[in-house]
Amino acid sequence: MTLTSRPGTTAEPVGSGGGTGLPGARRYLDIGDLSLESGVTLSGVRICYESWGQLNERGDNAVLVEHALTGDSHVVGPPGPDHPTPGWWEGLIGLGSPLDERYFVVAANVLGGCRGTTGPSSPAPDGQPYGSRFPAITVRDQVKAEAALAEHLGISSFAAVLGGSMGGMRALEWGVTYPAQVRRVIAVATTAAASGDQIAWAASQLAAIRMDPDFAGGDYYAGRPPLRGLSVARQIAHTTYRSGYELNTRFGRARQDDGPQFAVESYLDHHGTKLGRRFDANSYMVLTEAMNAHDIGRGRGGVEAVLQRFSPRLTAAVVDSDRLYTPAEGARLATARGAAPLVTMHSDHGHDGFLIEAAQVAAVVRGALA
Amino acid sequence: MTLTSRPGTTAEPVGSGGGTGLPGARRYLDIGDLSLESGVTLSGVRICYESWGQLNERGDNAVLVEHALTGDSHVVGPPGPDHPTPGWWEGLIGLGSPLDERYFVVAANVLGGCRGTTGPSSPAPDGQPYGSRFPAITVRDQVKAEAALAEHLGISSFAAVLGGSMGGMRALEWGVTYPAQVRRVIAVATTAAASGDQIAWAASQLAAIRMDPDFAGGDYYAGRPPLRGLSVARQIAHTTYRSGYELNTRFGRARQDDGPQFAVESYLDHHGTKLGRRFDANSYMVLTEAMNAHDIGRGRGGVEAVLQRFSPRLTAAVVDSDRLYTPAEGARLATARGAAPLVTMHSDHGHDGFLIEAAQVAAVVRGALA
Repeated sequence: MTLTSRPGTTAEPVGSGGGTGLPGARRYLDIGDLSLESGVTLSGVRICYESWGQLNERGDNAVLVEHALTGDSHVVGPPGPDHPTPGWWEGLIGLGSPLDERYFVVAANVLGGCRGTTGPSSPAPDGQPYGSRFPAITVRDQVKAEAALAEHLGISSFAAVLGGSMGGMRALEWGVTYPAQVRRVIAVATTAAASGDQIAWAASQLAAIRMDPDFAGGDYYAGRPPLRGLSVARQIAHTTYRSGYELNTRFGRARQDDGPQFAVESYLDHHGTKLGRRFDANSYMVLTEAMNAHDIGRGRGGVEAVLQRFSPRLTAAVVDSDRLYTPAEGARLATARGAAPLVTMHSDHGHDGFLIEAAQVAAVVRGALA
Repeated sequence: MTLTSRPGTTAEPVGSGGGTGLPGARRYLDIGDLSLESGVTLSGVRICYESWGQLNERGDNAVLVEHALTGDSHVVGPPGPDHPTPGWWEGLIGLGSPLDERYFVVAANVLGGCRGTTGPSSPAPDGQPYGSRFPAITVRDQVKAEAALAEHLGISSFAAVLGGSMGGMRALEWGVTYPAQVRRVIAVATTAAASGDQIAWAASQLAAIRMDPDFAGGDYYAGRPPLRGLSVARQIAHTTYRSGYELNTRFGRARQDDGPQFAVESYLDHHGTKLGRRFDANSYMVLTEAMNAHDIGRGRGGVEAVLQRFSPRLTAAVVDSDRLYTPAEGARLATARGAAPLVTMHSDHGHDGFLIEAAQVAAVVRGALA
């Protein structure tokens, strides 16, 4: 990759602050055709991103923040017309934060998602949504698309690429694919390769969405979206995202409003329904399958070999109560060449601690950048 | 309860050894109307059971073995016309086994199930299957039905009531409800009350079955059964039944027959589909909801108070890698008055270790009966 030579076309900005350069405003870049790891070409790919701060003359003060499965480019800031949710890592970016005015911070919506970057709900060349025609993609494909964005922005190298969960997968792939352009990787609550256990939890989620009659094989955009299937998938996922301790102490056997439903059932139903209002089921499946395929060692001699020649400074952090991306998986990352000692964050909340314990994440980022 | 006074009507025996008294042959008992904990009366209740050995003259050498969610009365023995599966605790009953000729061993199919005892697929008084009309039942209702069977059989007291998982719930309820008739309770991989975490795992399973269009609100017996919903539910459950360690080491990232599907996905799909061939979705839901409602302390001053006045000798056993019914829940049971020290079994298989590690279970039973 030559990060300064590849042309990109800036598409017409859309949204509240589009084109004004205001912090947190979504912007769009058309990067043209993308040749995928599978050999398939995805045509007319558009990247939607936000940025904060200014790139320096050397183009080397950039930081890339990678969002998780149902996250987006809106790392910090209030909700708005472009942003159904407030920032998911508040306190990370801005004056007094770890990513302050010294940095040019970029966050792109992921390839395959549904927040402005090309995904299954985007129009295919025939003008109709891809739906079931959207190809399988990998984390490496997602990183390749982001590299085109970095090139367009004139970034020569990143001070850090960081992310949690699925975002940590992209951060790790950045470090392996573009070692000369990434000085630090900060990988939070993630793994070098999806485990059998993680793939197992995903299996019932994918099956639930496929079972929803509204799914229609993925071509549902002219009709009702498969909200029930997506809700069941989210309920399964959400349970894996929280700790048993939290579910037992926060809800236990309490009933919702003294009715027949248990409070924890109502809680999961709420989260399942809520996701359907802001997320596309096809994106959920495409991204889940990309996570299943995630393996930094694929075609490279295996995970251990890749970690032994890892070039950027790697900081791995885990949540002590995480039962989905277990501390052992972070400890494996911390065996990488030159890696910082494993950082163990404390949270009662399980995997979601990587979002909830924002102050601890900020300390991890501050420490990694020091 | 007066175990010797209540009349029961023995229904016409059905099955390979019915009426012959041969070991393991299914027999039926009509216990009439059953007044449920909810106040609802379930009419014309039939219990299907198997027994091994002979009741002594005092009627006090009986042992009741309680099966788990998708188990049945066929504790030991080969599959046959009555038994879709081989015995699930082979080695527990018979000469040289912990439950040998000294004991009269009884195993009943659970109320609400689908293996011969009245459940949602049974005919209601109008001759049509109950379906959605089947009432909510509790573990206490299940135990009450079994008490009618014990009475009919002339059992004055049980040397032990034992079971694992959902079967352990019934064993515990037996010990609380009929303290004078139960000398020992052996509770394996189970809990005093369903936890918030267990209810959470059940929530997505119930939602998956309800979402299947073939479910038809529970009244599907004239059409296709909701096999896809039941399969998704089983896939979720099966993942909770196994340990992450096992799924990671046994399957990891291996592909099935070098195809696109992961081996662990194929494994879960196989187990989901297989259950549909032998189990009724309405029973799955009714029994799951009974487990959710399980709480030996309900209406009795709470779990701790009940444990402090527990009368039978309680032996609690856990599987060290069980992530669904955690060792902590067994340790809580072992605080019961006069309880034996907690027995921790070792298995890499997680919750299902309570079935897989039959030799360790046999040792637990032998020890408890010594």
